[in-house]
Amino acid sequence: MVPKNKNINIVPFVSVDNIMKIICTVGLENFLSGLATYIEEDMRRWEVFHKTPRVASHSDVGVIELMPISDDKTYSFKYVNGHPGNIREGLQTIAAFGLLADVSSGYPVLLSEMTMLTALRTAAFSALAAKYLAPKDADVMAIIGNGAQSEFQALAFRNILGINRLKLYDIDRDCSQKFVTNMEPFGFSMRVCNSPESAVEGADIITTITADKQYATILTDNMVGAGVHISAMGGDCPGKTEIHKDVLLRSQIFTEYTPQTRIEGEIQQLPNDHQVTELHEVISGKKPGRKSQEQITLFDSVGFAIADFSALRYLRDQVMKTGIYEQLDLLADPDDPRDLFGMLMRSAGAVLSKE
Amino acid sequence: MVPKNKNINIVPFVSVDNIMKIICTVGLENFLSGLATYIEEDMRRWEVFHKTPRVASHSDVGVIELMPISDDKTYSFKYVNGHPGNIREGLQTIAAFGLLADVSSGYPVLLSEMTMLTALRTAAFSALAAKYLAPKDADVMAIIGNGAQSEFQALAFRNILGINRLKLYDIDRDCSQKFVTNMEPFGFSMRVCNSPESAVEGADIITTITADKQYATILTDNMVGAGVHISAMGGDCPGKTEIHKDVLLRSQIFTEYTPQTRIEGEIQQLPNDHQVTELHEVISGKKPGRKSQEQITLFDSVGFAIADFSALRYLRDQVMKTGIYEQLDLLADPDDPRDLFGMLMRSAGAVLSKE
Repeated sequence: MVPKNKNINIVPFVSVDNIMKIICTVGLENFLSGLATYIEEDMRRWEVFHKTPRVASHSDVGVIELMPISDDKTYSFKYVNGHPGNIREGLQTIAAFGLLADVSSGYPVLLSEMTMLTALRTAAFSALAAKYLAPKDADVMAIIGNGAQSEFQALAFRNILGINRLKLYDIDRDCSQKFVTNMEPFGFSMRVCNSPESAVEGADIITTITADKQYATILTDNMVGAGVHISAMGGDCPGKTEIHKDVLLRSQIFTEYTPQTRIEGEIQQLPNDHQVTELHEVISGKKPGRKSQEQITLFDSVGFAIADFSALRYLRDQVMKTGIYEQLDLLADPDDPRDLFGMLMRSAGAVLSKE
Repeated sequence: MVPKNKNINIVPFVSVDNIMKIICTVGLENFLSGLATYIEEDMRRWEVFHKTPRVASHSDVGVIELMPISDDKTYSFKYVNGHPGNIREGLQTIAAFGLLADVSSGYPVLLSEMTMLTALRTAAFSALAAKYLAPKDADVMAIIGNGAQSEFQALAFRNILGINRLKLYDIDRDCSQKFVTNMEPFGFSMRVCNSPESAVEGADIITTITADKQYATILTDNMVGAGVHISAMGGDCPGKTEIHKDVLLRSQIFTEYTPQTRIEGEIQQLPNDHQVTELHEVISGKKPGRKSQEQITLFDSVGFAIADFSALRYLRDQVMKTGIYEQLDLLADPDDPRDLFGMLMRSAGAVLSKE
């Protein structure tokens, strides 16, 4: 069980090793649908969150971001980097960790790895969006970009929408092969394609999830037919987009938090007054999602702090259920809070007084 | 030694217990002067830092802040809360932890407790400021507010300025008594006073370091004579000040980062165009510090991220020297960075495929 008032100096910590144990204990597909449920719950109470734009620290080679958010009881933030060149050094493009804290005391209550958790929550979130936006009885999904997040996407879409047939494309064919090998045990029908054009042919849902930091055009206008749902996951910073402007103009576009998406999403290519719908409005029933089987819907995802908040909240509940965590001696907590120095003195014993 | 390219998934972690061991190994007074040296170095290269205002999340009872900063090589942030009511629950008013990361990869390289480290760097920084601003041959310091940070202040001022005589005042006399007991082994001449007026009498330096979140008036105009240096440490958010406006108007005021101090410091009581000097300009010799023995100087400190950056940088060097740290399995780092899912699969073994 997570300690509460006792041992408040000890913060429960979920390591990479332990999050994998928790996922296996809970079951990966259960974990994905659990995440989607918590995200959906939090989306429904959108108004109660104190939303802050992420704080980005840019350099020539990447970005380090802090993404804080809170409701009246709980605060969370995620530390996440984005370094496309990392892959050449054998490092993750994105590495992350995060924290939950108690608003009433300011004390942290959970610290966790979030590289794995971000991949899971991103997959759960995009599948949740598709639940509201994809055409009925969608069965075939194209996944363009078969890197670190792609398998999670496939499983979330099967779990939440029943997608069973996958068409895969990556500029690096080894990457698609890795996907196929990893997904073999899960019983998908999979086809590796030689071009993005061939991958999107006949797809009900197109997921783009590539990593290069540049204006790329993964989807051009002639590739996208009527009725498709596009899950545009890979554009997530100024100067990084995946979808041709003409596709955007034919689509009804859905966002997480529009002020952020205007800067970082696909819609940075469009005028600032281009009409979009925030997904939480659809989830809470205030606005329609898909209006017809012919409409092209596009979820312009850049990642928003509420999904991390939901993910950490879900993880904390799993930590409490499974008891799988370590204890981190993170907070100095003297018996008398005014006596931090005395705590140090007692720890030092005779050493200090002899200086 | 801190791991570098190998085991990059493992982040060195300094717990509360280990920071106390490091301080004792290095020596508390050495640690304070080491901190002051690193802060002074970083102040001299002020221009190279990418400065961001702290990101504050306010609630009715307190605030949680993230304080990021970076130069071209190193990024740091500190998580810190401010909850004046915590003391009634037996908790620290301020609890903190922080992180150093490598700008080129975005990967964290050190995670540390910072409740203790913040108390130390705050003391080192205010003593450093006084080195440039206090009257020559200052010998007597009044400390108003004898809480968690006060002893650290006294030791830093002795170490850096040679202060040996202390006059103490706190609204809670037990707090002053705690100070005297803690400082007994260090050979100060100490006097506990019955009023702030009596404490400041004859003092060359006045340190105010109280914690209530309100407009308080610890120092009124008639209490402050010519030539005194005031180290105003306790005012650090909107609505929290310690010094009467008339004292400010008689003083030459020095700040850390003026845009932040205008909002959070004592000078929130003054017009936005009131002339102040940033301390880094004095340290780098661009502007004068104290101009005469009669001048009243005032360091309006609210805490700035560069001091935390310097403190973490100093701590990291001590961690490397002493080898006192733990290893935190914080970052998912699959052999093939595109194969996060495969890492999870291999960890799960047969479990997942049976779902």
